[in-house]
Amino acid sequence: MPSADNHTIIFQPSGLSAQAERGAILSDAAIAAGVPISLPCGGQGRCGRCKVVITKGQVERRSEGKISATELEQGYALACQTRVLSDLEVFVPPIEEVLIRKLPTEKKAEKAYELPVACEWASHPTLRKIHLQIEPPSLLDNTTDFERLSRELARQHDIRDLTVDLPTLRRLAKALRGADWDITATLEMSTWTNPDGPPRLLDVAPGDQTQTLYGIAVDIGTTSNVVYLVDMVSGKVVDTASAYNMQISCGEDVISRIIYAKKPGGLEHLQRLVVQTLNGLIDELAQRAKIATSDIHKMIVAGNTTMIHLFLGLDPEAIRLEPYIPTVTHPSPARAYELGMHINPDATVDCLPGVGAYVGGDITAGVLSSKLFATDKLSLFIDVGTNGEIVLGNSDWLISCACSAGPAFEGAGVRSGMRATMGAIEEVWISAKTAEPTYSVIGDAPPEGICGSGMISLLAEMFISGVMDKAGKLNRTLDTPRIRVGDHGPEYVVAWASETRKKTEDIVITEADISNLIRAKAAIYAGFSVLTRSVGIELADVEQVLIGGAFGKYIDVEKAIQIGLLPDMPWDRFHYLGNTSALGAYAALLCSDMRAAVVDIANKMTYLELSADNTFMDQFTSALFLPHTDTASFPAVMRLLQSVGQA
Amino acid sequence: MPSADNHTIIFQPSGLSAQAERGAILSDAAIAAGVPISLPCGGQGRCGRCKVVITKGQVERRSEGKISATELEQGYALACQTRVLSDLEVFVPPIEEVLIRKLPTEKKAEKAYELPVACEWASHPTLRKIHLQIEPPSLLDNTTDFERLSRELARQHDIRDLTVDLPTLRRLAKALRGADWDITATLEMSTWTNPDGPPRLLDVAPGDQTQTLYGIAVDIGTTSNVVYLVDMVSGKVVDTASAYNMQISCGEDVISRIIYAKKPGGLEHLQRLVVQTLNGLIDELAQRAKIATSDIHKMIVAGNTTMIHLFLGLDPEAIRLEPYIPTVTHPSPARAYELGMHINPDATVDCLPGVGAYVGGDITAGVLSSKLFATDKLSLFIDVGTNGEIVLGNSDWLISCACSAGPAFEGAGVRSGMRATMGAIEEVWISAKTAEPTYSVIGDAPPEGICGSGMISLLAEMFISGVMDKAGKLNRTLDTPRIRVGDHGPEYVVAWASETRKKTEDIVITEADISNLIRAKAAIYAGFSVLTRSVGIELADVEQVLIGGAFGKYIDVEKAIQIGLLPDMPWDRFHYLGNTSALGAYAALLCSDMRAAVVDIANKMTYLELSADNTFMDQFTSALFLPHTDTASFPAVMRLLQSVGQA
Repeated sequence: MPSADNHTIIFQPSGLSAQAERGAILSDAAIAAGVPISLPCGGQGRCGRCKVVITKGQVERRSEGKISATELEQGYALACQTRVLSDLEVFVPPIEEVLIRKLPTEKKAEKAYELPVACEWASHPTLRKIHLQIEPPSLLDNTTDFERLSRELARQHDIRDLTVDLPTLRRLAKALRGADWDITATLEMSTWTNPDGPPRLLDVAPGDQTQTLYGIAVDIGTTSNVVYLVDMVSGKVVDTASAYNMQISCGEDVISRIIYAKKPGGLEHLQRLVVQTLNGLIDELAQRAKIATSDIHKMIVAGNTTMIHLFLGLDPEAIRLEPYIPTVTHPSPARAYELGMHINPDATVDCLPGVGAYVGGDITAGVLSSKLFATDKLSLFIDVGTNGEIVLGNSDWLISCACSAGPAFEGAGVRSGMRATMGAIEEVWISAKTAEPTYSVIGDAPPEGICGSGMISLLAEMFISGVMDKAGKLNRTLDTPRIRVGDHGPEYVVAWASETRKKTEDIVITEADISNLIRAKAAIYAGFSVLTRSVGIELADVEQVLIGGAFGKYIDVEKAIQIGLLPDMPWDRFHYLGNTSALGAYAALLCSDMRAAVVDIANKMTYLELSADNTFMDQFTSALFLPHTDTASFPAVMRLLQSVGQA
Repeated sequence: MPSADNHTIIFQPSGLSAQAERGAILSDAAIAAGVPISLPCGGQGRCGRCKVVITKGQVERRSEGKISATELEQGYALACQTRVLSDLEVFVPPIEEVLIRKLPTEKKAEKAYELPVACEWASHPTLRKIHLQIEPPSLLDNTTDFERLSRELARQHDIRDLTVDLPTLRRLAKALRGADWDITATLEMSTWTNPDGPPRLLDVAPGDQTQTLYGIAVDIGTTSNVVYLVDMVSGKVVDTASAYNMQISCGEDVISRIIYAKKPGGLEHLQRLVVQTLNGLIDELAQRAKIATSDIHKMIVAGNTTMIHLFLGLDPEAIRLEPYIPTVTHPSPARAYELGMHINPDATVDCLPGVGAYVGGDITAGVLSSKLFATDKLSLFIDVGTNGEIVLGNSDWLISCACSAGPAFEGAGVRSGMRATMGAIEEVWISAKTAEPTYSVIGDAPPEGICGSGMISLLAEMFISGVMDKAGKLNRTLDTPRIRVGDHGPEYVVAWASETRKKTEDIVITEADISNLIRAKAAIYAGFSVLTRSVGIELADVEQVLIGGAFGKYIDVEKAIQIGLLPDMPWDRFHYLGNTSALGAYAALLCSDMRAAVVDIANKMTYLELSADNTFMDQFTSALFLPHTDTASFPAVMRLLQSVGQA
């Protein structure tokens, strides 16, 4: 018979139970019951991984960190921060599996992505398929093939002034006769440069093929390329595929690519490599969808300004050198055959417009798909990719800048850095008592290095646990073998060689690495500061922070705030949006209003060149501390530091 | 002391003189004086080659044939038909040198060809060069290269909405910086499909290069290709070059080319061959003019429908088969780089519109340059090339047809036929008394065969001299070794083997050859007949006959009338216009009004498909006699036949 101070706790869905005294910590009871609970932060209440739902009984929550107000209402609690006050029934959610982030080919699953705003794309589509039965020519009606087709479109569908380019014209005679004059014509009704037409004939196929119509939305990232195959009849994404940009072999960041492009034949080589990458993805998608690549009749591309220059074969040299001038930011639509794309040769390849050398069409696409362009809320959009681009504004105005954060968070320029693939440490927890780390690795494999999100996590943990001070110096007075002076100066050992895959070298972070990372985060934060100050507002006034980009998907906001990479504000103001660039391209592919909106966004957006701003250097210098020189801007972080005795 | 009946004749400019009795034939006196006089017809008054000017004294003209009214006023006379009535002073024009027609490269000689009608081309040119000094970019003015150039054009010249294609865009960054922002921009202000622009940037060159601006006008003939290099500032033709169409190796006429195009890779091969031919000519012209081929910024092409299909790479198969349908007759302008042309890659390549499968842009160009489109006179235009195209009309209406005359007049399908090159018999005279021929050969070389004009001449002479009857049968009762029965039936020997270059074979014309030629001339004449009757007029109502085309230049109208190839009307109604196709392309190149006029011509022109006309066969059959079954239509020929005792 249980005493008044002895409570029974039943854990669901396993049904396992434990006895616990009043005031006991719930996570200890779970461990006693044999219920697997994730405690990577060692029970400090900082990681939020031990979240459970109290379905019956009473508890005392020592900390409500990592739990939103909604979750609180639903009974959520952190097991490590919860005291038992009565008999309990506790639901333990399944432990989240570690994300395998080696850019797998996503499985075929039709998705209707939401368009950023309501758009009547189906009522005035940019592409149309029309089934036509045409009277064959005779001696008495000997109009040419093209005129005959045009005449029929005018008669039956009131479509006039049809144009055609050479590739389709070259196939026309055979296509009409091969189909016995019963054909489906694919027409491009408009492009953004010709919103009112004239319509252009893209293809002639036999019989009625009006049920299917395909386009692709493409994100050309410096590191990864992504292709969405879109069914232009239903508006759904039929399938997606992604791969590393094959240009990586010529340089990991845009600057090294631009330098590579200067070599004889270098630009042409880079152009071919990205086309090869995309064609590989397109072939894969077409095969899975059982369509011909020539059935893809439109392509919208989002990418940063350098990637677009390389894709179009434009000389990028002037982008690299002050005053950083692209050849063009609003390129006119090109044709697939001009670029060597494996889609219908006459298909329009339309690159979304950018704003400047370092704010490209990937960002305008992001502003579209994140709905920033249509919101009343003062919003901050950040795309954390190989560069860090920031946009501040709302539906009325937009200002942007690019922070040359450098590739530190991409794993380059850091001793143990690597890309976010199998074997990368992606999350770290450090005990404040022992300075011992716990980490998780992508693919649950032995570690080989540390990726961007791992770096942020590591930096935050070293700082909060006192392993490192606010200037990024390691605390060499701590009694731990993990802090030592190596060949490259002071360093912290994250994983011993014996734990690693190769077993040859410890995985370390040096003070020099830390300095690089702090400079990178400082550049981004200084970007926020300069951008907000340039329009006379405070960072705290920002109502939402929209996080896009491949890397952005995996950032832990709490950790990013702790190191002062992101501003310190309530977590519910942050929104992860995934690949905002590809999603913007998808919206622009489907809907000409959305495509026009991207032009508005690009035209409306001011570009602030940080290197020309005389407050940037001050802001940057102030941000070279953890979390920041201006601690008042980081109240939550300061509270945490106080709670762990570091401030 | 001369008697009253003995006169002194002084020949100028040689100063040679002779004595002659009253009534003597002037040509005999010339021969006596040692003055070289050309008498290829043997003094029958039919060739007009012995034309002289009587500058003093009196003569009696037995015949005024071959002399126009104007010439008569000026004192011209045929030496072989003129009797001496007093002392004379006679001017003997230099004997015309035999034309060397082996398509020599014409010597560089700037020519301002007359435009068909007054055209203010210089006040609204389709191409413009503009010298611009552009403020270089800075951090505070970091507009892109293309926007900067566009902005400057708008500011300084009010030129807006500039567009650009990839090839020029790819060169832009280097071109601007290489020129230190002091550049000459070449702009295409309009094309026929975009008469109001927007302007398109074609080129950026360093410094002020506004003094020069080049375009080319091209005639793609089945046999010969011609390129005019045009100075678009002065409007003058700087230089011209011509060569055989390298496609000849794949077939001599359009039908055999179309059949060749069906082979795997055949069409692509033919496309490359014509481009190779043109590029060779362009390279040659550029070298002589000391310009880069990339300085050529526009190209207008005239050619028959099949040639245009092959040049653009369009499948020509349906042109050959009933109901004879081209893919297109008004092709949209293409770009030089799409076709592989050695001119500025972004230059527009604009093919003039045609009317149907067998009336192409060479004919609409001819209707333009011949001024038929702007005349009140009822006119007949004929382009005698590998095919015979005919247009009837005036500034109000136009009707056309194509006579599948076949290649007989081009030297093919005739035993001793050859093209009009060195060694071809081009003119023949036959003595009615002896049936012996006299002939002239291109290049004054030993003969090798007979070209088209030689065939017409030979046929006419055989007919007029009685060697052959009106049905084309040889008169085998004549006492001459030249008429005999050979391996291929009855034949007439034009040149004995010993006279020829190879000395192996006699040059003959067989009755089968004659039949082929008669069918060819009958097809053309039937074309005239059907065309005129289709609009309810008589051939005799035609006020002028405009003869264009490469072959047309060399036809002897008199002989052509004698065989019934051309209608029997006063010679002053016939006008030789040279290469009307190239001249039309030149006019359309220079002047957008002229370019628009070609579209009007093509749209206005009715195409009469002869094989669908039920009177054609009758007309054709009637024309299978020399000159024609309806002798009343050939009064002058009938008079001649009477005068020589053949009728």
